[in-house]
Amino acid sequence: MDIQDLANRVAAGERRALARAITLVESARKDHRAQATELLEAVAPLKREALRIGLSGTPGVGKSTFIEAFGMFLIEQGLKVAVLAVDPSSARSGGSILGDKTRMESLSREKNAFIRPSPSQAQMGGVARRSREAVALCEAAGFDVVLIETVGVGQSETMVAEMADLFLLLIAPAGGDELQGVKRGIMEIADIILVNKADGPLKETAMRTCADYAGALRLLRKRPYDPEGFPKAQMVSAVTHAGLPEAWAAMTELSDWRRAQGHWSTRRAEQARHWFEEDVRLGLLAALEKGDIRARLNVLGGQVARGEVGASRAAEEMIAHIHADMR
Amino acid sequence: MDIQDLANRVAAGERRALARAITLVESARKDHRAQATELLEAVAPLKREALRIGLSGTPGVGKSTFIEAFGMFLIEQGLKVAVLAVDPSSARSGGSILGDKTRMESLSREKNAFIRPSPSQAQMGGVARRSREAVALCEAAGFDVVLIETVGVGQSETMVAEMADLFLLLIAPAGGDELQGVKRGIMEIADIILVNKADGPLKETAMRTCADYAGALRLLRKRPYDPEGFPKAQMVSAVTHAGLPEAWAAMTELSDWRRAQGHWSTRRAEQARHWFEEDVRLGLLAALEKGDIRARLNVLGGQVARGEVGASRAAEEMIAHIHADMR
Repeated sequence: MDIQDLANRVAAGERRALARAITLVESARKDHRAQATELLEAVAPLKREALRIGLSGTPGVGKSTFIEAFGMFLIEQGLKVAVLAVDPSSARSGGSILGDKTRMESLSREKNAFIRPSPSQAQMGGVARRSREAVALCEAAGFDVVLIETVGVGQSETMVAEMADLFLLLIAPAGGDELQGVKRGIMEIADIILVNKADGPLKETAMRTCADYAGALRLLRKRPYDPEGFPKAQMVSAVTHAGLPEAWAAMTELSDWRRAQGHWSTRRAEQARHWFEEDVRLGLLAALEKGDIRARLNVLGGQVARGEVGASRAAEEMIAHIHADMR
Repeated sequence: MDIQDLANRVAAGERRALARAITLVESARKDHRAQATELLEAVAPLKREALRIGLSGTPGVGKSTFIEAFGMFLIEQGLKVAVLAVDPSSARSGGSILGDKTRMESLSREKNAFIRPSPSQAQMGGVARRSREAVALCEAAGFDVVLIETVGVGQSETMVAEMADLFLLLIAPAGGDELQGVKRGIMEIADIILVNKADGPLKETAMRTCADYAGALRLLRKRPYDPEGFPKAQMVSAVTHAGLPEAWAAMTELSDWRRAQGHWSTRRAEQARHWFEEDVRLGLLAALEKGDIRARLNVLGGQVARGEVGASRAAEEMIAHIHADMR
């Protein structure tokens, strides 16, 4: 594969080249990994930056419909929009979030849109690296906005927030259903909470929910990287498109302010450092999956399970063995 | 320190020896670690087993009051009860969950009770190992029940569930406050949900909440290690003590069934294997904190943050450096 050629075609905004480039960074094959690193280095000098928007929300809040409506809105503003799905749980379920593009029918037909479902054969731990490399490729391809979608489970929101400039939380109007709650940790990383389905019979409930979340946000500690009035809660309707211009205005206000104050670049630098250290950790742990090491882990693990040796003692032995193996 | 003597005194149920032994496993010092491993091996042949009960609940549900009441109830049944707090977040906040023992005044005066707050100087990653080693020491000291308390944040519940035989989730009666929600992941590891404060003016709300959770539990997939009727939701009052005998009856019914069916020992074996592999991972990652490695990580991290080198490339360099360093 001619990596420089692929890089040129990604830089020219060719969608098929972008799709192929993302497939390359998603691959677990060792030669593909080397090519992926080369590709990323080839496009890095472009120094193109998109607005990276993280988006989360539990199933049922209407994420796909929102992305479809919001994506079309952005395209009407003359912007190019990429949508990536991040789903760490797909390693288990084998499914992808976006499923197919049929759930975003209009958007998927737009030449200024690029939609990428999460890979079905995700390896845990590699999800983050692959996702942020895909984001970097979308930036290199000249997209103005990269929407990074995740489901509201486990640690995936934190991971997406660590690769986004802004984080949106999509919420459904809730009529006193205490099981639909949002964890404090998620509230703390949200920049804008969007109460969806603010239309038809749910509009009043949406207003109450929005006021509830606005109140909850006010109780959180002030963050140094927020201007006055943020984080905030707003209402949107992915069906009537009400609130979409206001939501976008809030996003640009926030990102403009962060750029002007220097928070934007500081945050990107911190994120890069974070992901570098995470990559090093993953690289070290990869040693455990080498055939002979894994075999020994399984043998010792069996002895630990049968109570023949203590976990701490066995772990010490194993670590010594791995270090000796690297010699 | 005479480790064999300490082991003997722990085995004899001396509470001061137990406290000292736990301090030893909590220490990050290398010589202490070696002694801790020796100590654990010295008590392992006793093969004493307690019922390990994980307990979680967000702040405000009345965990301390519940533990005080439930602990006293168990002591009245002639049982010896240890209470350990696990708080991964204390690494940041520097605080401990249980704070001091004054919140469990009666229990802390009982000779058949042992209460251990979470250490204030917790190191992330080491929390799990320290906690389960503390559990093993309590078992060796002859306690019949070990209550492992955690706050309802982040991954701490999963960690505690991985070292417990049973997992209880304490819930406050909720009058339609959707922010008090419980994540599906937590529901899935709970064996018994206890709706607390089922007394006074909250009793009716508690009944509704209990019915809601019972309904939600019925929607979950059937787990192979549950008898008919489990997981279940019950009401308790830490104030009037109503429901405590029924809660304990449910716990013993569940654990007796799991023992009889072989799930108990299978689960303990799986947990031991899990923690062994986790220890190995932590041991490998410990290489990153060696002085010269950390220094180089910081230099390379700075270059990544300034965009002088890509994260993937820098990570590859760093891993090669660490492997060379072990040679």
